[in-house]
Amino acid sequence: MKVKLKFIPLKYKNKEIIIIDQTKLPHKIVYKKLKNYKQLGNSIKKLEIRGAPLLGIASAFGILLAIEKFQTNNFNLFYNYFKKVANYLKSTRPTAVNLFHSIERIEKIILENKNKSIKEIKLLIKKEAEKIFNEDLEISYKIGEYGSELIKDGDVILTHCNAGGLATSGLGTALACMFIAKLKNKKFEVIATETRPLWQGARLTTWELLKWNIPVTLICDNTASYVMKLKKVNLVITGADRIAKNGDTANKIGTYNLALAAYYHKIPFYIAAPSTTFDLKIENGSQIPIEYRNSKEITMPFGKKISPDNVKTLNPAFDVTPSKLISGFITEKGILYKPFKKSFKKLL
Amino acid sequence: MKVKLKFIPLKYKNKEIIIIDQTKLPHKIVYKKLKNYKQLGNSIKKLEIRGAPLLGIASAFGILLAIEKFQTNNFNLFYNYFKKVANYLKSTRPTAVNLFHSIERIEKIILENKNKSIKEIKLLIKKEAEKIFNEDLEISYKIGEYGSELIKDGDVILTHCNAGGLATSGLGTALACMFIAKLKNKKFEVIATETRPLWQGARLTTWELLKWNIPVTLICDNTASYVMKLKKVNLVITGADRIAKNGDTANKIGTYNLALAAYYHKIPFYIAAPSTTFDLKIENGSQIPIEYRNSKEITMPFGKKISPDNVKTLNPAFDVTPSKLISGFITEKGILYKPFKKSFKKLL
Repeated sequence: MKVKLKFIPLKYKNKEIIIIDQTKLPHKIVYKKLKNYKQLGNSIKKLEIRGAPLLGIASAFGILLAIEKFQTNNFNLFYNYFKKVANYLKSTRPTAVNLFHSIERIEKIILENKNKSIKEIKLLIKKEAEKIFNEDLEISYKIGEYGSELIKDGDVILTHCNAGGLATSGLGTALACMFIAKLKNKKFEVIATETRPLWQGARLTTWELLKWNIPVTLICDNTASYVMKLKKVNLVITGADRIAKNGDTANKIGTYNLALAAYYHKIPFYIAAPSTTFDLKIENGSQIPIEYRNSKEITMPFGKKISPDNVKTLNPAFDVTPSKLISGFITEKGILYKPFKKSFKKLL
Repeated sequence: MKVKLKFIPLKYKNKEIIIIDQTKLPHKIVYKKLKNYKQLGNSIKKLEIRGAPLLGIASAFGILLAIEKFQTNNFNLFYNYFKKVANYLKSTRPTAVNLFHSIERIEKIILENKNKSIKEIKLLIKKEAEKIFNEDLEISYKIGEYGSELIKDGDVILTHCNAGGLATSGLGTALACMFIAKLKNKKFEVIATETRPLWQGARLTTWELLKWNIPVTLICDNTASYVMKLKKVNLVITGADRIAKNGDTANKIGTYNLALAAYYHKIPFYIAAPSTTFDLKIENGSQIPIEYRNSKEITMPFGKKISPDNVKTLNPAFDVTPSKLISGFITEKGILYKPFKKSFKKLL
């Protein structure tokens, strides 16, 4: 990859995972050391690290972290321990499929090499985790290359949540398209939605875009339709957490709202995601599990109680955008257009 | 009106205006005394009082407050002072037309009675302000009566911002429909959007609905489309700040988003508003002035800075929903259906 990253959101070094604690951004860059897989799980649950591709990377290194410290020469004990760690990590967040994919890859390595020594298997797992990381960098760059071709001078691009370097190995998916377009000297501006309840747009996306000197305007989520009309938004690109066989796409809550608004305003709506985000085992979006999160994320922003005691809330972390509303998928293998079932089959 | 109110958001007594400071809700009911019209103006600007019909009431009492304390026997001096106060109050918030209507009514009283003594004119102004208040109560009740007929057992109704008692003389517009339906023993539930950036839905609408024992679920604004699908929302009712001759409607930012989502899901979308909210002097929504508010409302919720320094924002307080997306207008004179130009002409 030929791009200089602005930061690395997660590193593995000396049997520790070092992350940028994303809950502290944008005001402080706090590096946090995670010494065991439970600490990693907590960081995932608290969204100190987040973003579908980064969850894939994190789970691979999480397993590495656990098994490097696990002393045994017995394969069965070793494999059982792997399963325990894997099941724990799988339980942290249910929607992003990348997390499951990485764990499957590691499991495959273990099972294919069961006759080797535990020491050798550990080395192979380390290689696989590093490969997952490096592949993600390469994939991000390719997504950026393909996606940047959709961007023209004068464009106003709307994006939601954070699908940038912080959600991946350091470059991004939706934002990678913008970063590469910037490297190609294209002149455009971005509208970032704040992304309630956890403000990933306000905190993270604006921060990344400003690091790249890309003009960005922050809006409340409910302002999207108005801005689409007023500012003549002509392109929407978001990330994804899981894409079904028919193209239905789970992504951060609010994506469906935006897709509807884009559809009404006849604005092309693209999803940028690595092929690991496609879950071809499921037919459509109704089968994607949606994570519901704590009520307090809505009722107590920054610890300040804003609504009456005990008011009921509904806090899905994701929604599903029907494939009908999606213009195309920007992947590392090219941009996939309709009919999706056919283009998915051909490329993925 | 045959309804017992839960509170009175604004009273005039002993040459003072007493308001419920809505920025302190829902945790404390703080009554605040306003001793002069500038204090009232500040309360309006800071949204301590808000809501199109209540702004109409407030501006009438604001003028009364000013002129009752203004000592002169000279009509020209009196009228000039009225104009000064009126211009100041008009400058506080540009979008809600009710504020302008009330001031026009007071001005008419003054000009029609210019030959009477200042003392007599002051009395007539007091009567007119009280009339505006009492009319609003009656209007709210009638809106509630008409609107409640749209509500059936089992309905799931979505509303945005706060169009309740706090936005009017004490009963409401959109919420009045629900309150009267509740009095009629209808069983339904409400979805309230939190309404960024100032959380009128989270703070005020949930509070009012819970006072009426109406089941309410609070969601982030960006969750509306998802909930429309998931919870089978079958009715949307919001208030309005100004309605143009063709039916285009300015209301709290986010209304346009919701209208689009309702349109896509084939959910009826109603606006509840008194006839004073209609501005038949303007042809369409493009002529409605939109208030832009301070960036900090977005970047510093509750004083906590969430985004990078100096990030650009766009913070319109309102948006305009095209009449095409609106099923009908619930007014004190009945429900107005398409074609709107014709039904407006007939009833307003």
